[in-house]
Amino acid sequence: MRIVSYEVHDVRFPTAAAGDGSDAINRGDYSAAYVSLHTDGGPSGDGFTFTNGRGNEIACAAIHALAHHVVGRTIEEIAAEPVKFWRSLTADVQLRWLGPEKGVIHMATGALVNAVWDLRAKLEGKPMWRLLAEMPSEELVRNIDFHHIVDALTPDEALSLLESRQVGYAQRLSVLERDGFPSYTTSVGWLGYPDEQVKSLTQAAYDAGFRAMKMKVGGPIEDDVRRAGLIRSVIGDNALLMMDANQVWDVPEAIANMSALKEFDPYWIEEPTHADDVLGHAAIAKAVAPIRVATGEVAANRVIFKQLLQAGAIGVCQVDACRVGGVNEVLATLLMAAKFDVPVCPHAGGVGLCEYVQHLAMFDYLRVGGSMADRMIEYVDHLHEHFEDPITVVGGRYRPPVKPGYSATLKPASIAEFSFPDGPVWRHG
Amino acid sequence: MRIVSYEVHDVRFPTAAAGDGSDAINRGDYSAAYVSLHTDGGPSGDGFTFTNGRGNEIACAAIHALAHHVVGRTIEEIAAEPVKFWRSLTADVQLRWLGPEKGVIHMATGALVNAVWDLRAKLEGKPMWRLLAEMPSEELVRNIDFHHIVDALTPDEALSLLESRQVGYAQRLSVLERDGFPSYTTSVGWLGYPDEQVKSLTQAAYDAGFRAMKMKVGGPIEDDVRRAGLIRSVIGDNALLMMDANQVWDVPEAIANMSALKEFDPYWIEEPTHADDVLGHAAIAKAVAPIRVATGEVAANRVIFKQLLQAGAIGVCQVDACRVGGVNEVLATLLMAAKFDVPVCPHAGGVGLCEYVQHLAMFDYLRVGGSMADRMIEYVDHLHEHFEDPITVVGGRYRPPVKPGYSATLKPASIAEFSFPDGPVWRHG
Repeated sequence: MRIVSYEVHDVRFPTAAAGDGSDAINRGDYSAAYVSLHTDGGPSGDGFTFTNGRGNEIACAAIHALAHHVVGRTIEEIAAEPVKFWRSLTADVQLRWLGPEKGVIHMATGALVNAVWDLRAKLEGKPMWRLLAEMPSEELVRNIDFHHIVDALTPDEALSLLESRQVGYAQRLSVLERDGFPSYTTSVGWLGYPDEQVKSLTQAAYDAGFRAMKMKVGGPIEDDVRRAGLIRSVIGDNALLMMDANQVWDVPEAIANMSALKEFDPYWIEEPTHADDVLGHAAIAKAVAPIRVATGEVAANRVIFKQLLQAGAIGVCQVDACRVGGVNEVLATLLMAAKFDVPVCPHAGGVGLCEYVQHLAMFDYLRVGGSMADRMIEYVDHLHEHFEDPITVVGGRYRPPVKPGYSATLKPASIAEFSFPDGPVWRHG
Repeated sequence: MRIVSYEVHDVRFPTAAAGDGSDAINRGDYSAAYVSLHTDGGPSGDGFTFTNGRGNEIACAAIHALAHHVVGRTIEEIAAEPVKFWRSLTADVQLRWLGPEKGVIHMATGALVNAVWDLRAKLEGKPMWRLLAEMPSEELVRNIDFHHIVDALTPDEALSLLESRQVGYAQRLSVLERDGFPSYTTSVGWLGYPDEQVKSLTQAAYDAGFRAMKMKVGGPIEDDVRRAGLIRSVIGDNALLMMDANQVWDVPEAIANMSALKEFDPYWIEEPTHADDVLGHAAIAKAVAPIRVATGEVAANRVIFKQLLQAGAIGVCQVDACRVGGVNEVLATLLMAAKFDVPVCPHAGGVGLCEYVQHLAMFDYLRVGGSMADRMIEYVDHLHEHFEDPITVVGGRYRPPVKPGYSATLKPASIAEFSFPDGPVWRHG
């Protein structure tokens, strides 16, 4: 089955005006740099990288720049030598300079690599989580580029870890299919929402079954304290409250502010400082323990995750599905996290990230992490209606997807409506 | 003086075919995503970010996406609140997601910020190094965004450091104007060159006065050993030999390979592993001492440099002029390096990087580092003929530029000839 052509769509949803997704540093129009890979007679593979609005066209340009490494290949040759394929994207002798393995060029890699995986899953007739969960350990290992991470995880260690987790697989699968996967909600506490809205959303989420809520912090500390008290008063002592500073604090500031917020018993502090600051996260982790430090949504690649784990900088690993170079690099990250015994709670929200990461969390539970303890999938209730196979969350738990693929396919009508700048929403907006 | 419009040029030089610039991971057509800022009646400010060929259009797209933060402003308001201006680029609530502060979007920031500085220098009638060298310490500090680096350097510390370096300024200025600034050459040992060419280029460089040479390593180790022996045999024991692996090694591999290469008395090993791997560089530095670890050409921002310095991971700081967010972020890096007592030898080569960084090294000598000991500017003899104010290197030393500006202005004929894809060189190439 050969990939014969591709198309790229710049799809943007006008979320900024509503205050959805507003935090200490972002106020975005949730967008997807979306790519479809067309085959000679088979299904199309769809993938995207998420962006925050302006600049989505840059991510689209990067997909165009990389697409020649994908078009013309067969799925069989990609599956036979997956790291060779992955490196054709990440180690292009000219394009690598633009990252390397970070920023726009790496996000575009993620879109393309995920589209290839979507195609593989569709061809196998399985949802992504099941495709990965049923893959032999040797093949999973063969899909990982260990370059620059062997000091933390060797292929042999990865294989041993996967093999050791075979114990209990059938039991975990039945639990997953019976109970679904735990989630937490971020929809209650965006900075753009007034207090009354935060309160009513928190109550509604609690009533819907959520027992873990995340609020944004990083505004004036007195506002953060007031909002934390408000949410805690609604959810009581039997639910988790997470906090997310979206990188706005300096290292000493993060430590001081968490001291002011600890009375509300935060479970984790997410992105307390600059995403690149491994040593800073380690210093904060040490200072705020037992509150966990969580990060990952803008951790660029496996080398950053390696260091966060080596340095004891994180107690929660929040890998993103399309910030890194797609499924292959997520596999590397899940395995390193398991080796360092750090639970993975993938980053979601935006547009389509929940659809992506549910597969990753479920695979991680079945084959890598091996437990639901301390694991949750982020849940944000935006924009799912635009996907062909949207998430299903019941009683605060994700149901395992059943349709073949990576759940990344947007409805054609949504692509048409929200294409930038010519879709009706933008032309008349 | 108001910036009223801008233009962007995608300029590419066909260097890949000749093997120039070939190393363990790059084989590029040296390119500039080039921007000119036009004023109402004054000079234009020119800046660029360097890329390796393919994908230069992505960097150009990123400049377009950021340009609205620049056009319409006056130089006076930018100079009055420089961090506010800088953050309008680096902390755009939508575009920040694409980095943050790394990759294409940050390189585009560098191009624009440098163009503004070129304009400032032209308006003051001074070469960039002199504009900075004659700037009051308070103003230099005011140009730095200390966000996320205060745990390594506070504004007060920066000010004290600058003030303490006022001692001896006049003396250093006269030394600089009399003797120029030391350099080293990278033109002798690209991986694409056959042994005989390496030998003759090394001899020619030695005869021209260079007493420091850099070779590329990272191919098969036996080739690296053979080439190192060859270069060392030409230059004898009274010249420095530096090695550059361009990130190709894993951490244990870097340590093992440097053990094999140490008999040739390398002065530094540059980019021994992945650029994001602060902890890896620290481990290598410890293992290979007294050989220094050098890195920086793809260190994305001040937060990476902060950590490299905090971790004792580098003995040489090779900040790039346009990988980071332009002059303002270079200032932060120079000051942190000085605090940690690590010499700065800026990255150059490519196209126009020598033109840029000579100004930075000379300013560093005069006001920050305060010494020429262990300082050298990289010298590569490519593509200088395309600049209006090219570097002058005499007897292996850079002469201080005298024309106003940041030496970033390309000749109009070169822009026309090498514009991609419509310039004659590409249309008929």
